[in-house]
Amino acid sequence: MSHPSPRRTRDPARKQAAILAAARAVFAERGYENATIREIARRAGVTHGLVVLHFSTKEQLFVAATTPDPESLFKGVLDDDVTKLPERIAASFVHRMEASDGADPVIALIRSAAGDQQAAKALLQTLQQTAVDGYARVLDIPDLATRVNMMGAHLIGVAFSRYVLADGPVAAMSPDELIARLTTTIRTILFD
Amino acid sequence: MSHPSPRRTRDPARKQAAILAAARAVFAERGYENATIREIARRAGVTHGLVVLHFSTKEQLFVAATTPDPESLFKGVLDDDVTKLPERIAASFVHRMEASDGADPVIALIRSAAGDQQAAKALLQTLQQTAVDGYARVLDIPDLATRVNMMGAHLIGVAFSRYVLADGPVAAMSPDELIARLTTTIRTILFD
Repeated sequence: MSHPSPRRTRDPARKQAAILAAARAVFAERGYENATIREIARRAGVTHGLVVLHFSTKEQLFVAATTPDPESLFKGVLDDDVTKLPERIAASFVHRMEASDGADPVIALIRSAAGDQQAAKALLQTLQQTAVDGYARVLDIPDLATRVNMMGAHLIGVAFSRYVLADGPVAAMSPDELIARLTTTIRTILFD
Repeated sequence: MSHPSPRRTRDPARKQAAILAAARAVFAERGYENATIREIARRAGVTHGLVVLHFSTKEQLFVAATTPDPESLFKGVLDDDVTKLPERIAASFVHRMEASDGADPVIALIRSAAGDQQAAKALLQTLQQTAVDGYARVLDIPDLATRVNMMGAHLIGVAFSRYVLADGPVAAMSPDELIARLTTTIRTILFD
């Protein structure tokens, strides 16, 4: 038995990782309001009590599960050649979203904004702060936070049409066309 | 009694208008999933049965209540001077949203995307088609639908941060600053 199923693991770190992975999937599929700790526990193969022991509340589990790792978020994006930054941001966003199978923080964010909004606000703040901190490493412009937040708003809107509702021309265009259009818009938002 | 309260009106057209106004408010406040016909009926001062008689289902009531009137949507926006179109779109959007008190179709759209998405898709299609039809009256560009839908995605993302979650720099900036930033982005999306 060299590959124990995640449903049967006894390793605490593995259990925690299994809970977070199950939470990401359930929050993305159902939205924050309709997600339950019970279903997350079931999918992770652990007890309801263990999830509560590790994460206390649904909101805390949501933030822990959906907060992206900055290193993976900015992989290949931050670079001294700032003139090509819009291309790299656009390509990284589209490739990440296309591969995410719906379990991306931006999707979770959109699907958590319907009901009680504390969880959604906490996630938006985390995402935007992570983005501002990252771009501050390569960009030195006075209204950086505002520009990065406007860019974030743009990407949220595109994700809404293309990946959440998946409807209309924004959803139908090829990844390459989307990258080209986003590159132009991101360049304007960051530098014009 | 020259000003009968809307709770007591006997005029069918008025009752229908009262139902639609109550529906707009309830869908915007609670999101699609949490809105109930019962609460909409109560706020409109009519019976549950009358709402069902007029609109059959919650989804049909949602689409009827949130579909914007194209004339009011494009008031002051469509004009032969196309060079200033981005300014007029940006100003119209911001003024409409600032005055909407949360009861705008774009807010309803965002707050309906968490659960069952048929209602949200129907509303997104209606909003985008209305926009494409409107701008086709003054713009003659081959990929108009794609550009208008990308602009729509941008406005949805801005509304998400500023008017739904109401958090961060996008929510904090003045209406005039937002109009100036949107004008630049919209010009790029429509014409670059």
